[in-house]
Amino acid sequence: MAEENKMTIILFSGEMDKALAAFTLATTAGSMGFKVTMFFTFWGLNVLKKGGLLAKKTNFLQKMFAFMNRGTKDSLPLSKFNFSGAGPAMMKLLMTQKKMASLPEMMKLAKELGVKFEACTTSCNIMGVDREALIDEVDEMVGAASYLGDAKNSNVNLFI
Amino acid sequence: MAEENKMTIILFSGEMDKALAAFTLATTAGSMGFKVTMFFTFWGLNVLKKGGLLAKKTNFLQKMFAFMNRGTKDSLPLSKFNFSGAGPAMMKLLMTQKKMASLPEMMKLAKELGVKFEACTTSCNIMGVDREALIDEVDEMVGAASYLGDAKNSNVNLFI
Amino acid sequence: MAEENKMTIILFSGEMDKALAAFTLATTAGSMGFKVTMFFTFWGLNVLKKGGLLAKKTNFLQKMFAFMNRGTKDSLPLSKFNFSGAGPAMMKLLMTQKKMASLPEMMKLAKELGVKFEACTTSCNIMGVDREALIDEVDEMVGAASYLGDAKNSNVNLFI
Repeated sequence: MAEENKMTIILFSGEMDKALAAFTLATTAGSMGFKVTMFFTFWGLNVLKKGGLLAKKTNFLQKMFAFMNRGTKDSLPLSKFNFSGAGPAMMKLLMTQKKMASLPEMMKLAKELGVKFEACTTSCNIMGVDREALIDEVDEMVGAASYLGDAKNSNVNLFI
Repeated sequence: MAEENKMTIILFSGEMDKALAAFTLATTAGSMGFKVTMFFTFWGLNVLKKGGLLAKKTNFLQKMFAFMNRGTKDSLPLSKFNFSGAGPAMMKLLMTQKKMASLPEMMKLAKELGVKFEACTTSCNIMGVDREALIDEVDEMVGAASYLGDAKNSNVNLFI
Repeated sequence: MAEENKMTIILFSGEMDKALAAFTLATTAGSMGFKVTMFFTFWGLNVLKKGGLLAKKTNFLQKMFAFMNRGTKDSLPLSKFNFSGAGPAMMKLLMTQKKMASLPEMMKLAKELGVKFEACTTSCNIMGVDREALIDEVDEMVGAASYLGDAKNSNVNLFI
């Protein structure tokens, strides 16, 4: 068929290993000509956070939550064997040894391949994260309806 | 196309954050006219449990398992920052502040929108959970074959 | 339609409960005539490991990683209530009582039903796992592009 292939990925998890899996799939699909949309929600939003910054109008609870949940793409934990950061450091070292792209490098490649980054408005709202707190590469802040509009016409939809 | 859009969600996880993600997607899809089927299996069954009750014929192992795994929709843990229940309490408070629907409210809305709740018979069997132990809103107890019959004709299939 | 139904499953997780869910879906789909492809990546590779063996050319970091991550299909943890192995033992006992197939039995059935087992080359490369370290039942070692080629034409695609 002449139709374009499409993929959506919901990245719900904020762990390095799951983010690596998501971006490996997204960049591979992008290089195969798929139109790829990634929808970042809950802990997955950490991948898009600049770090440090928060919306000015956050309340006390949101500040506490933000403090606990302060990872960014450069400092995500592993879902297993985290050991207070020793696991992710090992994983990064292994990836460097094997000449694999790091998460920030994969994100850059994803943008070059036209992968769309969408931040979930509802999650941002709860966590006190506004557009300012997110990296420039984010294309849009949208809700679940926007995601479903893409997903219903996609060949591959994954929740990670 | 004139065809109806369809979505299935397998809710395998028993955590509040994942259940919230599942029901946000299900209710949004329902309000967009999707026919939505949710299949609850393993820890996801907790969302459908009344709490306290168990099938009369459970054995000792099932009773132990049920004791460890005693959450319901009103008392699910978070997948991160659970802190023996402090995390979920914070999350609930934040959601109330932001005027978001709680999990029980979303489940009610899902039923109003015609979202189908299916409990996995195999999981129920292992865990000693029978129809009596589940909330009235459950439409059916079915197996994986029933899920696959729905999923094969759906636009969007997610495993959460 | 006369077309064959197809399903792909990415098994990313290395926990017994998630592997059981994946193989229940795969074997049920297989017995319904679906063409099923399972793509094992990251911790999911443990399901395919013989145990003990590693590629000869692994370096120190890979050996350490392999030591921490030494589960096989016979010794996977649970994602909840693991209790250093007491949880999985309880689950196995419950499954035997209920006359359910164990994970190794389900894997055997999956092969008989023609389910394809693919090991992710990238994950194998990072973890120092080569073909020798994997069970004979593995059909191929392939990358994400191969997975996406299958997924784009499948009715059901799940990430577990």
